[in-house]
Amino acid sequence: MAREVYIAVVGPSAGTPAELAIGEAVGRGVAEAGGVLVCGGMGGVMESAAGGCADAGGRSVGILPGDSRLEANPYLTVAVATGMGEARNAIVVRTADVVIAVRGEFGTLSEIALALKMGKPVVGLGTWELGKEGESVDAIVRATDPRDAVAQAFRLASR
Amino acid sequence: MAREVYIAVVGPSAGTPAELAIGEAVGRGVAEAGGVLVCGGMGGVMESAAGGCADAGGRSVGILPGDSRLEANPYLTVAVATGMGEARNAIVVRTADVVIAVRGEFGTLSEIALALKMGKPVVGLGTWELGKEGESVDAIVRATDPRDAVAQAFRLASR
Amino acid sequence: MAREVYIAVVGPSAGTPAELAIGEAVGRGVAEAGGVLVCGGMGGVMESAAGGCADAGGRSVGILPGDSRLEANPYLTVAVATGMGEARNAIVVRTADVVIAVRGEFGTLSEIALALKMGKPVVGLGTWELGKEGESVDAIVRATDPRDAVAQAFRLASR
Amino acid sequence: MAREVYIAVVGPSAGTPAELAIGEAVGRGVAEAGGVLVCGGMGGVMESAAGGCADAGGRSVGILPGDSRLEANPYLTVAVATGMGEARNAIVVRTADVVIAVRGEFGTLSEIALALKMGKPVVGLGTWELGKEGESVDAIVRATDPRDAVAQAFRLASR
Repeated sequence: MAREVYIAVVGPSAGTPAELAIGEAVGRGVAEAGGVLVCGGMGGVMESAAGGCADAGGRSVGILPGDSRLEANPYLTVAVATGMGEARNAIVVRTADVVIAVRGEFGTLSEIALALKMGKPVVGLGTWELGKEGESVDAIVRATDPRDAVAQAFRLASR
Repeated sequence: MAREVYIAVVGPSAGTPAELAIGEAVGRGVAEAGGVLVCGGMGGVMESAAGGCADAGGRSVGILPGDSRLEANPYLTVAVATGMGEARNAIVVRTADVVIAVRGEFGTLSEIALALKMGKPVVGLGTWELGKEGESVDAIVRATDPRDAVAQAFRLASR
Repeated sequence: MAREVYIAVVGPSAGTPAELAIGEAVGRGVAEAGGVLVCGGMGGVMESAAGGCADAGGRSVGILPGDSRLEANPYLTVAVATGMGEARNAIVVRTADVVIAVRGEFGTLSEIALALKMGKPVVGLGTWELGKEGESVDAIVRATDPRDAVAQAFRLASR
Repeated sequence: MAREVYIAVVGPSAGTPAELAIGEAVGRGVAEAGGVLVCGGMGGVMESAAGGCADAGGRSVGILPGDSRLEANPYLTVAVATGMGEARNAIVVRTADVVIAVRGEFGTLSEIALALKMGKPVVGLGTWELGKEGESVDAIVRATDPRDAVAQAFRLASR
């Protein structure tokens, strides 16, 4: 089932309650829309997104940085242990059609940048802002809430 | 669901009918025993194993060498596009608890070797034979048929 | 000779003449200061930095995305073919102590982000500006010219 | 300098004195013939080969499994920290035109197999023997001593 829409949800591994709630809603939304959730497999927003996806009966894959599947959060359909550290971020993005970024730190920023480099759309929920020479670079599609983020992601995936 | 037994099935991407039938039976057996099937996601034995797994209602993940999920066989629960070429063989093995090798060519041999290097058991069905200085090196557990291979794999995984 | 200072120079694969000149000066400066230059091995700023390094008698390694060393620019001491596509950006950063970013596009942004994620200093020459919620995030050390960038990089590397 | 002949020397990370001497002679021979030595960057045969190469004034690159260059042996021209574990074996092989295998354990076997999969010649010095269904598979070119191994490797590289 590789032809369905795959949406990566990226965000902090130790999120605030508000961030976790956003991740959960996005994961649920991806599942309800019939998509497959891709994430980094660890805690924080990766875990809440996988939990939301599971609650809605959806499928998810977690692509872990470490050597052991046992580091995975418990809500994934399948966990993949890459043993590649941060280089796995490229696989998270490569596997997805669109990336939804929920706030996030530098790891999330790397996933946003890799997606844009690969020509994949990025939808942002309160995430990084980019600029050059004092001018904003509007490469991230801004969403107002989880529902909007999922809707935009599926719209962009179907182009 | 990272705590279930994950079994990688590795073998030729263009198998003979007999090899494909073995792959299909192994995939079915992994699913019936409650395991998750890991494979390289492409055709041949990877495809027949994923097909057998799907027929038995099991879960599978295909870890692809290329950039696109669309190269995946159609029977996978989830496809992962690594874009890493043969380096993805290490991820196939890393993700699994035990590897079942169905005959196979040099790619399969690399997966057998990586598994043994990582200390993971390898069960062989008519696959490579290894030696040094004229002496056989019996690192691969030999199985007589798909049923035996699956039984041995689960026994070794539970150690 | 793994204990010398390794400085990654990252930037656009098709730079303007001004960007190429900056890359050349940075590569020369890294060599003159006794460092080893790390780059992505391709054209543009990667090539001009390797050229500057070679002119000054320094050593450089290019870590290529593709399968073939023949894609490398001709100024490298050693070329490494990863066959991993953009995932090689993590290896460029992992291999370096400090990253100098010369302007750059999304690939460069991913290398900046990966470096910051790994806790490695990033020195910027007219490169990306980062923000969150309308506030600037000053994670990149700004340099005024190539000489300053190299000086700051070696200072940060010796901490 | 990506167009010179690159020869990977693979073998045990904890070799016997005889194995280390073979590695040293092979590394020296690669350098004397004008080649670039590729290795895994760690101890054992990787270290003795890099040492022989350095003694003869040659260039070498060590492609490390871990996150830190400080794990590298001290004889390399350049060390690359991949942070990818055993998946780095594919990069060692990808970077080389020909692989010389000095005896070795399962890691070495994986490099032999990956090279053969990628269509790259493998020259063996007392290394693994391969078979299928009781028949020997003669995929490795056997050399009698380090001098012969280097000569055969360069001959195969120039095809």
